[in-house]
Amino acid sequence: MRHPSLTLLAASLLLASGVACAADTTIPSAAVKTAEQLRDKAMHDDTGYRIVTSLTEIGPRLAGSPADQRGVDWAVAEFKALGFDKVYTEPVTYPKWVRRSEHGAIVSPFPQRLVLTALGYSPGTPKGGLTAQIVRFEGLDALKAANPAAIKGKIVFVDYRMHRYKDGHDYGVGSPIRVEGPVIAQAKGAAGYLLRTVGTDPHSRTPNTGVTGFRDQTKTIPAAAVSNPDADQLERALATGKPVTVRLDLDCGIEGQYTGANVIGEITGAKHPDQVVAIGGHLDSWDPGTGAIDDGAGVAIAMAAGKLIHDLPQRPDRTIRVIAFANEEMGLWGGRAYAEKHAGDVRKFQLGTESDFGAGQVWRMSASVKPEARGAIEQIAKVLSPIGVAYDAKRPGGGGSDLSQMHGKGMAALSLTQDGTNYFDWHHTAADTLDKIDPKDMAQNVAVYAAFSYMAAQADGDFGSAPGAFANDGAGD
Amino acid sequence: MRHPSLTLLAASLLLASGVACAADTTIPSAAVKTAEQLRDKAMHDDTGYRIVTSLTEIGPRLAGSPADQRGVDWAVAEFKALGFDKVYTEPVTYPKWVRRSEHGAIVSPFPQRLVLTALGYSPGTPKGGLTAQIVRFEGLDALKAANPAAIKGKIVFVDYRMHRYKDGHDYGVGSPIRVEGPVIAQAKGAAGYLLRTVGTDPHSRTPNTGVTGFRDQTKTIPAAAVSNPDADQLERALATGKPVTVRLDLDCGIEGQYTGANVIGEITGAKHPDQVVAIGGHLDSWDPGTGAIDDGAGVAIAMAAGKLIHDLPQRPDRTIRVIAFANEEMGLWGGRAYAEKHAGDVRKFQLGTESDFGAGQVWRMSASVKPEARGAIEQIAKVLSPIGVAYDAKRPGGGGSDLSQMHGKGMAALSLTQDGTNYFDWHHTAADTLDKIDPKDMAQNVAVYAAFSYMAAQADGDFGSAPGAFANDGAGD
Repeated sequence: MRHPSLTLLAASLLLASGVACAADTTIPSAAVKTAEQLRDKAMHDDTGYRIVTSLTEIGPRLAGSPADQRGVDWAVAEFKALGFDKVYTEPVTYPKWVRRSEHGAIVSPFPQRLVLTALGYSPGTPKGGLTAQIVRFEGLDALKAANPAAIKGKIVFVDYRMHRYKDGHDYGVGSPIRVEGPVIAQAKGAAGYLLRTVGTDPHSRTPNTGVTGFRDQTKTIPAAAVSNPDADQLERALATGKPVTVRLDLDCGIEGQYTGANVIGEITGAKHPDQVVAIGGHLDSWDPGTGAIDDGAGVAIAMAAGKLIHDLPQRPDRTIRVIAFANEEMGLWGGRAYAEKHAGDVRKFQLGTESDFGAGQVWRMSASVKPEARGAIEQIAKVLSPIGVAYDAKRPGGGGSDLSQMHGKGMAALSLTQDGTNYFDWHHTAADTLDKIDPKDMAQNVAVYAAFSYMAAQADGDFGSAPGAFANDGAGD
Repeated sequence: MRHPSLTLLAASLLLASGVACAADTTIPSAAVKTAEQLRDKAMHDDTGYRIVTSLTEIGPRLAGSPADQRGVDWAVAEFKALGFDKVYTEPVTYPKWVRRSEHGAIVSPFPQRLVLTALGYSPGTPKGGLTAQIVRFEGLDALKAANPAAIKGKIVFVDYRMHRYKDGHDYGVGSPIRVEGPVIAQAKGAAGYLLRTVGTDPHSRTPNTGVTGFRDQTKTIPAAAVSNPDADQLERALATGKPVTVRLDLDCGIEGQYTGANVIGEITGAKHPDQVVAIGGHLDSWDPGTGAIDDGAGVAIAMAAGKLIHDLPQRPDRTIRVIAFANEEMGLWGGRAYAEKHAGDVRKFQLGTESDFGAGQVWRMSASVKPEARGAIEQIAKVLSPIGVAYDAKRPGGGGSDLSQMHGKGMAALSLTQDGTNYFDWHHTAADTLDKIDPKDMAQNVAVYAAFSYMAAQADGDFGSAPGAFANDGAGD
């Protein structure tokens, strides 16, 4: 049993008196002071915004596409231009999914175009399209409970309307409808799968794409998301009481394997170069937009934080490792490859977290660390508090999307939760473009990442990374 | 010289005493009372919303398309179902413009997709697309002033950012950039024309289409609008100082002539069946959306107003004529055909106006009528005031889009200005769908149209319609 509150109290008292137990991890006061300076400098620095601007000029970086390689080349060049000490890549291999075209229509009771987007790993429809009656479900539970006889040969339509929250928690409902739903529908004999877009803009006609859980390519059906206004139209068609027939015409699918790369830049630690603070984002994006908020922002935040630490008069004690992950979007391929490769070194990962929830300001921090490092986390929280970050000692820290995989291996991790109020208006849509990013918000994110990374790098002691250390912390991200 | 203020004062005094000059037009008090009842009933009636819902099920009704004919059939059937006394069509012939596909990209300095929409009457590009350097102008005046040598062989890019206003007046700047700009650019030797979308949503990637002023098909160049985020991207590309090359790939153009129809429904007047109050909207729409706010709403508002008058215990004195115009979007074809056909009967048009600015609430009324009818207009204003309509006695009344043409022939007309704050976020885009309409706002519009139409139909006297009567009233809409 851990008693974090007592530990925290003890740590606070000890810190107040400038003394720490041998077992407790602490941040030296000089490092705290430097972190405060880094924070304050970052709040008025546009490096992060400049980087994400440059990255969005690549355009959409669909994993395995020509732009994916341009993104890798860009990241290598950018790390070098920023002065990182070491820049390298690690290969990541995955199935290459290609989108060529996508069309849809209501055939009856009234003919009308449907604006839709094919989902990742969806196969194409037969030539001439797939025309079938739709059968509607309120959500995933209703689909799970459905009799296959009601589904066989039809196009399943799951009609869940996602709602807007600061922490984006309704994605926890919407995402499985997109990921698991098509697999369930296929198993019950559906001919195709449609969902109301996993997005919170009720008015836009740029639906949110995203990956399905199709892994076995012998068990797939065409799957697509319709925009909210189009889902409304389907509801009205169903309300007539007549059979509603829809045509899907998707030209997409898997074309063999592709080997991309995680791109890594390091600010080499002066005292413990083999011990790393790991931060990052993912380099790939969905193809309708330009991948500004998902996840150009995350890559830029981490790169800029590294750059600010690089610009200090001397190198930090430990290495700051910035990772631009490959193919997060279609199933954490970069993160899983990374974790597999580095699991044996997990003790060398001082602390880590990834930014992958847009560019809204960080408003909450939580951590999964050993009890003896709670005091150091409190020290970090105290530095981040003036820029709007509240420390929630009761929640675990999951490390973000790709780095959740290293956390799963035992890496001590933070969660730095951004304001996601508008995130799902634009996430995975054509509207994921640079105008969605406020340079001031970017600067705040960079300040958070620079300050925490530096403090973790300078800590006296570690945060508890060890094989399987946080297996039961309940981190969900 | 007219002295409207004195006339108004005189009319008010006379009305207050219950006496009117023989020369003054007035609304009998029984008619005012019935209009108030109509108004109050309409505020809680969903007929308008039901009609526009049904119309959007047709989908986009691009003039000359198969859905245009479906729209005509729908309107005939709907008028009949609503119980209109007389339902008929009048032919309207125009060039048929067809959109097949549209793509665009920045070629250099960094390759990237551009989300764009071809403009009405734009020709297609040659096979393989048109690739040329762009040359940017802040607005139309800069383009007009430009030396043709700076334009020849290039793609002109007019980069005016439209702003949001309740009365939508910035469309007065944006619209000419779309209509006149391509003609000016062609005359100066441009190879193509791009504009920042004439739309007020800075974040959407559904650009606003619309018509150009191309009339002579031997003098056209490919013309398209890019979304605001794409225009931002072009600005960033230009900011590099390097030449910016763009590829346009448009498959569209004119395919002969088409004959569509204005569809007209009448509630026949009991006393003066040949004298008409003319209201309406336009039946055609642009093709990306479903034509809900532009102009399904207008058609539905006018139809519903007619229906409410139809449901009174007895027919009004004069005829209520509801006109669903053909092909407003590509140059008021329906409105011009109507005015040409009926100009000789202009004295029989008691008063008229068209709804074509979305479905926001009416907040302002103005009128172009003879001085002796100002008192009657004041009476109408008094009935509309409790539902939020302010009378502006200083502005002319233009009659709306298509009916502006009858006003030009001398029809007395109102302007009933709707709240257009969000109108240009959606106008002519894929996002022009039913969810943009608030049923309560629709009801308010129907209340306005029903009340004013009935009062005009019951007036003792006319509003001054006569050939050329309002030629110099300055009505702009």
